[in-house]
Amino acid sequence: MSILVVGSVAFDSIETPFGQVDEVLGGSATYFSTSASFFTDVSLVAVVGEDFPDEHRQLLIDRGVDIEGLQSAPGQTFRWKGRYGFDLNEAHTLDTQLNVFESFSPKIPDSYKDAEYVFLANIDPELQLEVLEQVNNPKLVACDTMNFWIEGKRDALVKTLKHVDVLVINEGEVRQLADEPNLRKAAQAILAMGPKSLVVKRGEYGVLMFSEHSIFAAPAYPLEEVFDPTGAGDTFAGGFIGYLASTRNLEERNIRQAVVFGSVMASFTVESFSLDRLKGLQYEDIENRFREMKLLSDFEAIN
Amino acid sequence: MSILVVGSVAFDSIETPFGQVDEVLGGSATYFSTSASFFTDVSLVAVVGEDFPDEHRQLLIDRGVDIEGLQSAPGQTFRWKGRYGFDLNEAHTLDTQLNVFESFSPKIPDSYKDAEYVFLANIDPELQLEVLEQVNNPKLVACDTMNFWIEGKRDALVKTLKHVDVLVINEGEVRQLADEPNLRKAAQAILAMGPKSLVVKRGEYGVLMFSEHSIFAAPAYPLEEVFDPTGAGDTFAGGFIGYLASTRNLEERNIRQAVVFGSVMASFTVESFSLDRLKGLQYEDIENRFREMKLLSDFEAIN
Repeated sequence: MSILVVGSVAFDSIETPFGQVDEVLGGSATYFSTSASFFTDVSLVAVVGEDFPDEHRQLLIDRGVDIEGLQSAPGQTFRWKGRYGFDLNEAHTLDTQLNVFESFSPKIPDSYKDAEYVFLANIDPELQLEVLEQVNNPKLVACDTMNFWIEGKRDALVKTLKHVDVLVINEGEVRQLADEPNLRKAAQAILAMGPKSLVVKRGEYGVLMFSEHSIFAAPAYPLEEVFDPTGAGDTFAGGFIGYLASTRNLEERNIRQAVVFGSVMASFTVESFSLDRLKGLQYEDIENRFREMKLLSDFEAIN
Repeated sequence: MSILVVGSVAFDSIETPFGQVDEVLGGSATYFSTSASFFTDVSLVAVVGEDFPDEHRQLLIDRGVDIEGLQSAPGQTFRWKGRYGFDLNEAHTLDTQLNVFESFSPKIPDSYKDAEYVFLANIDPELQLEVLEQVNNPKLVACDTMNFWIEGKRDALVKTLKHVDVLVINEGEVRQLADEPNLRKAAQAILAMGPKSLVVKRGEYGVLMFSEHSIFAAPAYPLEEVFDPTGAGDTFAGGFIGYLASTRNLEERNIRQAVVFGSVMASFTVESFSLDRLKGLQYEDIENRFREMKLLSDFEAIN
């Protein structure tokens, strides 16, 4: 088995300048696993309520995602309601109902414990650490977090980061976590906390990846229609870790390609609400857009 | 002769979180010509007042800039006062004194009229058009503009754009000029106004260049110390047009390299106040940073 992801499965209600939807399938683990499933096997750990319909389970099963770890608990599924303006870079949260997610305690099925690649989506850093205590020596641990945990659970987060190989967070969070406005200096401070690599998500401006001896800048694919940015970060992470797991290669050159595959996956997700665009995607579409990304950013060296 | 630039020469007073300076040499034509001078010959047209010291003239002469077109007028030189916060992407103008710049009427010396490359820095689009009426069939005309002219002199600007090959403006101005929030659609609308290429400056996020059949994304060089962003855009344009003029090659592959040389020059300018960093620069420094830009953005293609 290949990747373990622990995160949320949710119902999202979203307004953008281009439309609105109510209670569509969302959540970090959902986006991540669907995206990663194009590259390799994924096992999911999350919790849903009694209101979670079989059709959503089936969608994950159809993508080959192992949902043995999808717990069902009494009560309602996590709900998030948000709005985006024309500046699609920032979500304005209108309502959050944690519901069954409030008392989520990730239990890793025995069949998942040998996962070689682990992605800890954006959940309480104490829970992230509990996940790591249940798995057997993974080859690579990646994690996400957010301003809420950086402010409220910094100590737990710093403890978790000691066990993390790749931290995948957005630009504002990098500056906040390091308490340093210069991104390059902030990245150095975060690498000193434990991670070997820091992947900085910059929305429509792409991704910067910092490692000890190198920096890699990948642009975002410039889309004519950005419909809904929800899930872009987790979809990026799914493509990124999915490609790494499928190639089983952690050399710099391969990690760079993985960043581009992640960016490609994110570019598809934002073209429609929920998982609508990912559902209909073919691997050939992914490769074609990867080639477009190469054309987009390529220039000739000088002697 | 090679490049003609028409723009401003100014005294800047600047506050950043890292220091402040009073009445240092600045202005679009100053930054542009100093930057371009590392690549080819530049002729400058601008106006200064009686208070403009010889040492500033000498600095331009030492860089090989032809200042026959630097008019001296009764009165004071243009002054700009601005402040940057930790978010160095945006300047807050504290004071603008146009002085002699208010009645600037660009007069192109006869010896400049055969310039093959023309850069119309950010001045009144009516004056930009007057410049074009005075030159003999240049090979390439590039121009900059700003929100002030987009709002106040749109008709004149649209008229000027019909004669422009490359428009170099910032991201917000692209959206404003096209009245379209999606950058890719906005770019298409602007290309339909006349320019063959649109170079979108995105500050620390780099540059996107749109042409009829291609898009090129260049990252910004991630600096540990961004001291003062003033002049970055004009310095970019100087490196960009300077490289194009020096290579006399307008193929896509060469234009892409020119964008990267422009980005390299801008990355040096922001490392200190005024022209301080450019003054001490060697061509070898430029080439070395170009190579770093290649390492920064390079990834392998897939089959």
